Amino acid sequence: MELNEAVAKFKENVKLLKAYYHAMGVMSYDIETVAPKNAIGGYSDTMAVFSEVTYKLTVNEDNFALLDFLAEHENELDEITRRGAEEARRGLKFMRSIPMDEYVAYQRLVNEASSVWHDAKVENDYPKFEPYLNKLVDYSVRFAKYAEPDMDPYDYWLNEYEKGFTKEVLEGYFAKVRETLVPLIRRVTEAKRPDDGFLKKNYPVWKQRIFSDELMKIMGIDRRDCGIGETEHPFTTGFNKHDVRITTHYHEDAVASSMYSVIHEGGHAIYEMGTADELGETMLASGASCGMHESQSRFYENIIGRSRAFVDLVLPKMKEIFPEELEGVTGEQFYRAINIAEPSLVRTEADELTYSMHVLIRYEIEKKLFSGELSTKDLPAEWNRLYKEYLGVDVPSDKEGCLQDSHWSGGGFGYFPSYSLGSAYGAQMLNAMKKELDVDALVRNGEISRITEWLREHIHKYGMLKDPKELLMISCGEEFKPEYYLDYLTKKFSELYGL
Amino acid sequence: MELNEAVAKFKENVKLLKAYYHAMGVMSYDIETVAPKNAIGGYSDTMAVFSEVTYKLTVNEDNFALLDFLAEHENELDEITRRGAEEARRGLKFMRSIPMDEYVAYQRLVNEASSVWHDAKVENDYPKFEPYLNKLVDYSVRFAKYAEPDMDPYDYWLNEYEKGFTKEVLEGYFAKVRETLVPLIRRVTEAKRPDDGFLKKNYPVWKQRIFSDELMKIMGIDRRDCGIGETEHPFTTGFNKHDVRITTHYHEDAVASSMYSVIHEGGHAIYEMGTADELGETMLASGASCGMHESQSRFYENIIGRSRAFVDLVLPKMKEIFPEELEGVTGEQFYRAINIAEPSLVRTEADELTYSMHVLIRYEIEKKLFSGELSTKDLPAEWNRLYKEYLGVDVPSDKEGCLQDSHWSGGGFGYFPSYSLGSAYGAQMLNAMKKELDVDALVRNGEISRITEWLREHIHKYGMLKDPKELLMISCGEEFKPEYYLDYLTKKFSELYGL
Repeated sequence: MELNEAVAKFKENVKLLKAYYHAMGVMSYDIETVAPKNAIGGYSDTMAVFSEVTYKLTVNEDNFALLDFLAEHENELDEITRRGAEEARRGLKFMRSIPMDEYVAYQRLVNEASSVWHDAKVENDYPKFEPYLNKLVDYSVRFAKYAEPDMDPYDYWLNEYEKGFTKEVLEGYFAKVRETLVPLIRRVTEAKRPDDGFLKKNYPVWKQRIFSDELMKIMGIDRRDCGIGETEHPFTTGFNKHDVRITTHYHEDAVASSMYSVIHEGGHAIYEMGTADELGETMLASGASCGMHESQSRFYENIIGRSRAFVDLVLPKMKEIFPEELEGVTGEQFYRAINIAEPSLVRTEADELTYSMHVLIRYEIEKKLFSGELSTKDLPAEWNRLYKEYLGVDVPSDKEGCLQDSHWSGGGFGYFPSYSLGSAYGAQMLNAMKKELDVDALVRNGEISRITEWLREHIHKYGMLKDPKELLMISCGEEFKPEYYLDYLTKKFSELYGL
Repeated sequence: MELNEAVAKFKENVKLLKAYYHAMGVMSYDIETVAPKNAIGGYSDTMAVFSEVTYKLTVNEDNFALLDFLAEHENELDEITRRGAEEARRGLKFMRSIPMDEYVAYQRLVNEASSVWHDAKVENDYPKFEPYLNKLVDYSVRFAKYAEPDMDPYDYWLNEYEKGFTKEVLEGYFAKVRETLVPLIRRVTEAKRPDDGFLKKNYPVWKQRIFSDELMKIMGIDRRDCGIGETEHPFTTGFNKHDVRITTHYHEDAVASSMYSVIHEGGHAIYEMGTADELGETMLASGASCGMHESQSRFYENIIGRSRAFVDLVLPKMKEIFPEELEGVTGEQFYRAINIAEPSLVRTEADELTYSMHVLIRYEIEKKLFSGELSTKDLPAEWNRLYKEYLGVDVPSDKEGCLQDSHWSGGGFGYFPSYSLGSAYGAQMLNAMKKELDVDALVRNGEISRITEWLREHIHKYGMLKDPKELLMISCGEEFKPEYYLDYLTKKFSELYGL
C-alpha cells in the first residue's frame, strides 16, 4: 500500500462515517426534542440498520490493516491526520478486543437496562434495576480487562473519559476537595440563607423563551450556527461547528433553572463552534474530553454566569422581559439568590459550592463497585450513608438517591469525576486568563466574546488534537492544580456568606 | 434464483432503503423547522453521501436483475409485494436512465437552490434565484428525456405526479375551470365583501399554538403519532404511520392563516396515519399521488373546515382561547369571514374559489418553460401578466409573485396541477360520501372521526396500492368528473354572496 493511497482511503472512510454519525445525531436530537411519542418504533429500526452499517464499516480486517499501516508511518503524517488515525485506532482497539457475541449481548443489556432504569426511577424500585446494574458492572470490569489486561479496570474507564486522570490523581484531588469543602459547606449551612422568593414567582414560558434568545445573544452565540430546543434534561449536541444545538427546560416557577441551563449548554456549544476550520473534515472537531467540555460549560455557567459582574449585565435586560416579576430586585439581591448554597439530594440541581461533593460520592461508590468492596445490593445504603456523612442530608428515597442519574444504566462508569474536574480546570483557566484580561470589566461591559476569544485561542480551536493535560499546559502554563478551584470557592462563598 | 429468495432479497433491500429515506426525511424536516441557518453546509455533504449510497443500493445490475425477475413472476406474488416491486422498478427505470454524476450534481443543486430561494424571497431578489431556476428546468427537461425519450418532458413530470393526468386531460380540465370560475369570480368581486376585521385583530402567537393543539384534537389526530412544527411554508411529512409531522406558520394579525394551515396539513397527516398496517414494511405506506394527497388536505381544509357546520363546532372552543378577540362574533359572521373570496396574490393564502386560478397560472408557465416558449429571465413578466389577465390583480413584487412558492426551488415542476385536481377529487368524494353519511350533522356534533373512517376505508388504507383513477372508482364508483367541483363552488359561493 502507498502512504498517500492509505491516507486517501482513511479520509474517505471518515467522510462516510461522519455522514452516518451526522444522521444518527440528528435523529437522536429529533427524538429528544420534537418527535411524537410513537416515532420510537420506526427509529429503532433505522438506528439498528445504521449501527450495523457503521459497525461493518469500522470493524473489519481492511480497516485494521489500514490503521496499523498508518500507525507504522505516523512520523510521515501531518499532525491532524496522525491524531485522527491514532484516535480511530484507539477506539478500534477496544472493539477488536471484545468477542462479538459479548459485544452484542452487552448492547442489548444496555438497551434493556436504560428502559428498566426509567421505570425503576419512576416507581422508586431499586431492586428492579439492581440485577441490571450488577451485570453492567461485570461487563465493564471484563471489557476493561479485555482491552487492557494489565490495567486496573476502573482506571481503564477513568482514563477513557479523562486521559491521564486515573485513581492515583483523583485520590489526591478528591481528598483536597473533601478537606476544603466539607467544613466550608458546614459553615455556609449555618449562615443566614438569602431570599430567592422572586425567582420562584410565575415566569410565563413564552417570555422565558424570549429570555433564552437574549441570553444566547449576550453570550455572543451566533444563532446561524446554533439552535435551541426543549427537553426534560438539557443537553448539547454538535454535528459540526456550524450546526450545534442546545436544549433547555422551562418551569414557570423556576426562572433560574432554564436560565442557567441555557448558559451551561451555551458554554458547551461555544466550545463546539470554536474548533478550528481545519478539523472540519475529521472526527476531531469536538471537545478534547468530557472534563474539558464540562470546564467550558461550567465556566460560562458559574464563573461568568453567577458572577456579580454578570448580574450587572443581565439584570437590566431581564427586567425588560420580566418587569413585574423582578420589580424592585437589586443586583446584590439577585447575585445572592442565584448563589444560594445548601446541601441537597440531586446532583443536577446542586449549587456551585456543593456540586463536587455529589461527584465525590459517586466516585467513591464506583471505585468500590469495581474493586468488589461494594455489591450492587448494598449500594443504596452506602449512597445514603455518604450523603449523610458529606452533605448532612437524609436521602428519603432511592429515586432521589442512587437512581437519580442515567449514566450507570447506559454503562457509563468513570464519567462522573469529569464533571468535577471540569469545574477545577475552569478555575485554573480563570486564573491564567486574568493575567491577560480584566474579566469582570469585560463581563460587565457585555464583552463576553473577548473571553470566548481567549478560550478559543487556548482551548477550543484544538478540538481533540490535544489531551486535557496538554491543554491545561497550553492555556495555564502549568499542570493541573486543584488549589485554584478550592481557593475560588472559598473566596466566593466566604464573601457571599460573610464567613 | 428461487422466487422466495428473490422476495426475501427484495424485502431486505426495502428495509435498508427505508432506513436511509427515513434519515434523509428527518434531516430535511430538521432543516426546514429547527436547524440553524448554517447547518446547510454539513447537510449538503451528508445528503450527498446518502444520495450516493442509496443510488448505489438501487441502481445496480443485481437489483435490475432482481426486479426484472420479480416482474417475470408477478402472477405468483401477493398483491403488496407485486405492487411494491412494480413501483420500485418504475422508479428504477428513471434512476437507470440518469448518469450517476448528473444525479449527484442535481441533488447538490437542489440543496443549494432551496437555500438561495429562501434568501432571494426575503430580499425580493429574483435575479439571485434565476440562474438556479434555469438550471433546475434544464435538469428536469434532460432527466425526463433520459427517462422517456419519446414523451413530452412536461407530460413526463405531470404523469409522475398524477398518473394519467397529462396535458391532454389537463387542457380540458382547466378549460372548464376557467370557463366557470372567471365569470363567477367576477360576480363575487362585484358583490358586497363581508366583514372580517375580527380575524385581523392581534392574536398572540403563544395562544395560536394552543389553538393548533385544539384543532388537531377536533380533527381526531392522535398526537402520539403526529407532531407539529413551525415553518414559513407549511407542509407535512410522514416517516411511517406512527411518525407524521405537520408544520404551520403564525401571524399575529391573521389567525385564520395558521388555523387553515393546520387543518390542511392535518388532512395530509390523517392520510399518512390511515395507511394499512400491512404496508408498514413496504414503500407503499403513503398517499397514492400528489393529487390524491391534496384531495384529502383540501377536503378537511375547505369542504369540512370552511363549512357552516364546522363553524358551529369550532367557534365556541375558539372563543375559550380568544375570548376578547372574538367577543360578539356570531357563527354566521365567522362563516362569511372565512369564506371571503377575492382575487389575490399568494396561492397559499388564496380562498377556495380563486385557488384553482393560481394553479392554472403556474400550469401555463411551467408548460411554456418546458417547451422553451418562456425563459426563466422572462418569467416574472409573464407571471405578472397572467395574474392581471385571470385575476385582475397587479403583482407589486416578485416575493409576492413568482418567488412565493418553494416547489421550483426543490426541482418540483408539474406538481401544481395536483393541487387543483385534489380539490376536484374532494368534491367528487363528498358527493359519494353524502350517499352514506350525514356529513354536516357529523361535523356539527364533533364526530369528524366518522368522516375520517369513511375516507380511511375508501382511500387511506390503500396507500400507494392503487392509482388515483382506481381510487376514484373505488370511492366514488365512477371516473373523474370535474363537474362536482365546479357545481360545489358555484352553489356555495352563489349562496354566500346572494348571486
